[in-house]
Amino acid sequence: MVNIDTDKRAVDLNCDFGEGYGSYSFGQDAELLPYITSVNIACGFHAGDPHTMHAAVKQALSAGAAIGAHPGLPDRLGFGRREMQVTAAEVYDFVLYQVGALQAFVRALGGEMAHLKPHGALYHMANRDKEVSEAIVKAALAVDERLIIFGQSGSILLDTAKQYGLPSASEVFADRAYEPDGSLAPRGKQGAVLHDADQAAAQAVAMAAKGLAFTPEGAPVNVQADTICLHGDGSRAALFASRIREALIQEGITLRAPGKA
Amino acid sequence: MVNIDTDKRAVDLNCDFGEGYGSYSFGQDAELLPYITSVNIACGFHAGDPHTMHAAVKQALSAGAAIGAHPGLPDRLGFGRREMQVTAAEVYDFVLYQVGALQAFVRALGGEMAHLKPHGALYHMANRDKEVSEAIVKAALAVDERLIIFGQSGSILLDTAKQYGLPSASEVFADRAYEPDGSLAPRGKQGAVLHDADQAAAQAVAMAAKGLAFTPEGAPVNVQADTICLHGDGSRAALFASRIREALIQEGITLRAPGKA
Amino acid sequence: MVNIDTDKRAVDLNCDFGEGYGSYSFGQDAELLPYITSVNIACGFHAGDPHTMHAAVKQALSAGAAIGAHPGLPDRLGFGRREMQVTAAEVYDFVLYQVGALQAFVRALGGEMAHLKPHGALYHMANRDKEVSEAIVKAALAVDERLIIFGQSGSILLDTAKQYGLPSASEVFADRAYEPDGSLAPRGKQGAVLHDADQAAAQAVAMAAKGLAFTPEGAPVNVQADTICLHGDGSRAALFASRIREALIQEGITLRAPGKA
Amino acid sequence: MVNIDTDKRAVDLNCDFGEGYGSYSFGQDAELLPYITSVNIACGFHAGDPHTMHAAVKQALSAGAAIGAHPGLPDRLGFGRREMQVTAAEVYDFVLYQVGALQAFVRALGGEMAHLKPHGALYHMANRDKEVSEAIVKAALAVDERLIIFGQSGSILLDTAKQYGLPSASEVFADRAYEPDGSLAPRGKQGAVLHDADQAAAQAVAMAAKGLAFTPEGAPVNVQADTICLHGDGSRAALFASRIREALIQEGITLRAPGKA
Repeated sequence: MVNIDTDKRAVDLNCDFGEGYGSYSFGQDAELLPYITSVNIACGFHAGDPHTMHAAVKQALSAGAAIGAHPGLPDRLGFGRREMQVTAAEVYDFVLYQVGALQAFVRALGGEMAHLKPHGALYHMANRDKEVSEAIVKAALAVDERLIIFGQSGSILLDTAKQYGLPSASEVFADRAYEPDGSLAPRGKQGAVLHDADQAAAQAVAMAAKGLAFTPEGAPVNVQADTICLHGDGSRAALFASRIREALIQEGITLRAPGKA
Repeated sequence: MVNIDTDKRAVDLNCDFGEGYGSYSFGQDAELLPYITSVNIACGFHAGDPHTMHAAVKQALSAGAAIGAHPGLPDRLGFGRREMQVTAAEVYDFVLYQVGALQAFVRALGGEMAHLKPHGALYHMANRDKEVSEAIVKAALAVDERLIIFGQSGSILLDTAKQYGLPSASEVFADRAYEPDGSLAPRGKQGAVLHDADQAAAQAVAMAAKGLAFTPEGAPVNVQADTICLHGDGSRAALFASRIREALIQEGITLRAPGKA
Repeated sequence: MVNIDTDKRAVDLNCDFGEGYGSYSFGQDAELLPYITSVNIACGFHAGDPHTMHAAVKQALSAGAAIGAHPGLPDRLGFGRREMQVTAAEVYDFVLYQVGALQAFVRALGGEMAHLKPHGALYHMANRDKEVSEAIVKAALAVDERLIIFGQSGSILLDTAKQYGLPSASEVFADRAYEPDGSLAPRGKQGAVLHDADQAAAQAVAMAAKGLAFTPEGAPVNVQADTICLHGDGSRAALFASRIREALIQEGITLRAPGKA
Repeated sequence: MVNIDTDKRAVDLNCDFGEGYGSYSFGQDAELLPYITSVNIACGFHAGDPHTMHAAVKQALSAGAAIGAHPGLPDRLGFGRREMQVTAAEVYDFVLYQVGALQAFVRALGGEMAHLKPHGALYHMANRDKEVSEAIVKAALAVDERLIIFGQSGSILLDTAKQYGLPSASEVFADRAYEPDGSLAPRGKQGAVLHDADQAAAQAVAMAAKGLAFTPEGAPVNVQADTICLHGDGSRAALFASRIREALIQEGITLRAPGKA
């Protein structure tokens, strides 16, 4: 790694959180919490319920992690990962409902909601579709005009947030290779997913310090890395998180939630 | 009707509202809205969804009706009318979630939530069970300490609201006969339900003006009538509402939501 | 109407049925039942629940209507009308589950299930997508190889049913205009929906007797009309049904479910 | 252990199965499957979905385990563990729906459903309430009069099954202590749950061989052990299952599903 002093900066580490339901647990919230600075809490549509939300907010506040809403499509069976033919008006209502519900828990426990990151299929739709992104941004504005919108680096969602005057954070994925145009290399492609924690950690550092991701072939791609998404499920989630965190700290990169001093 | 000038007072007329779901409608929201002063909006558990909530809040604001949350048990199939073995901690989370979600719509449309009335089985449980009533009151407090708790006349829920410093409104039912102890005569009992609109209107006047309800046999029973519940479903809902409203106005009783000047 | 004696034949009149949920009703089952020969009963995904299914099967058996399963996508909020990104394997499981559940009620009440018609978005997907149509046909085969598949006139679903050796019935819509290629004129198009009951009845006769539908401009289009779909919702559903039934009978066309002697 | 040759007999080992939902898994199906002879498959109400049912039936058939339906109350959030005020008519419909849905998967994969065991709160209600037990038994009869009803040793559910001419299997819990009257010692009581696998295995042997369970104090209690329930969740589920199985085999007790030769 070259000397990056001149590029030194801060980055956020976020992960999805509170994605269980009833008697079901999901992901490794407790294991990941020590490594991250922001959590995206499921709000009861794709995952989560009033009890998981209560518990997740409590955990996040204890750990000092910034709290974000993680609204999804109303498809618990599909975990919000299937696209649905929904209108922008429906998306607005879905998001407003979920963010409002989470807001109540956050305030009841004395916190402040910091950001909003759409989940799964809704995230993908928002990143590429103007109307969907506007619906989400307008719902966020209706709740709190200081909510930071998390959108994929280079996405329409980020543009829309800026257009409507909301703060935003550009998100990158440490364990995913990128296409030359700055989009994610599709999962089917050879090398699209980084299975080696050290390689992911190295990319995380390049992302945060230099705004660089890599293609499967290793060519550099410009990205903006305000926040790095860590996956909360999978058997090696905590390993990846700890390696990425260590590598960033070692390079002198400050870990903090967007908007935090 | 005796002269009630000396007892002249104000009363609220409330009805459940926005209890459809998706393609399903329920009740006669539009028909009843002209007659009432407060609406209790379903929040997505026993009935309602993000779209019905959005529409209901809009309608209520246009009509100048006070808006209340109407949280229920998570039993859409049973319309929240079946009691479930839930803990106080679960009730707290259920209510906080639903009230928070509705709050977001109310604020997005520029309104203020005025009250909270639990629905169906949750209402009955809260009226008689200290722990359930505390869970509801604490959830209300967490959202807005000015929320007015609607509870049945003489109920534990009203006592609990007072104990926790929340405003409350004592609710009566114009079309139901009462037991001598102030509880509702059970539906199975002869004369328990008033099927005649004029009789219901007469009782509404007695309730509002004199704090009197009647047993099936016609004996007077003391009740406190801050708000009168009008049923929103049934083929004659609008007829009952209009007769009750007329009778109250004719007797010089002011119709207004609790807490409104 | 020209003399159609030489073309005289039989046709089925079907409508969606049992599409309520819990306290919600939908459509006009009782009003339409006298006019139709087949019902498509909702199975709990897009609409319906165990109680509506029980009641619907009972009603259909009393009226002598042929009973069909009407499985939909798992989207009660959207009434199964929104397309979702589901795999063929998922569709197979969705359909098998729903058909099996309905089968239990039909058998418990002494009937036999006669047909299967996918609902809403699933119907549209099955009519145009080979994989989805195969998933549905295979699920039908797994339950009862005599199940008659209802698919739109000219659809892939009908081809697939034939390919797998299942009986099928070609469905047409009396109140919809057609494109020259035999597909439905899109709802947005002028004249796409017939709002006049007599016009719909005339088209129903032409469909059943001569295999002819019409474009919005009145040009004839070849269709195969084994079964005519009557809409169960809308304020004039019963009016349309009675007019269509009368007109068919007047022209000497026998009304009977497919496969019935 | 005394010589039990003269009492030698067969017993079934059952466990709940397929209790995941969508992206959520639950229990340790694969780990337990080698040790058991019957599985109770969740049918989509308290747990399970069409895909988990498909997979569970396939797994059970491969392993040669007898397949049973495991219908629950419609309360996924509460995992069917909360009692609800449901009528007998509702229970009948709930059970018929779920058993029919599972039946379709079992038949599609070439198997036969062998038994029915209600889940959680529905099990407890059925064991003590005549009307609920009748509703379940009648639903079973409507599907297949050879279905074996699993009910708790000494329960009303077993009596009802016999009364209606259905085969039944008396169920005991190897890891639970019993009251002198043959009921389970309540979980809150000291010694009510056996935390030692060897102790549970010893009780399993006594149950199967001699019809004896034990109080927390060690006094013998008569039970009838046609089938022993093994818990599928908990970190030591497979350990308990393997110890219990070993101990039974070592004592010469045949492990087989009820009704199997």
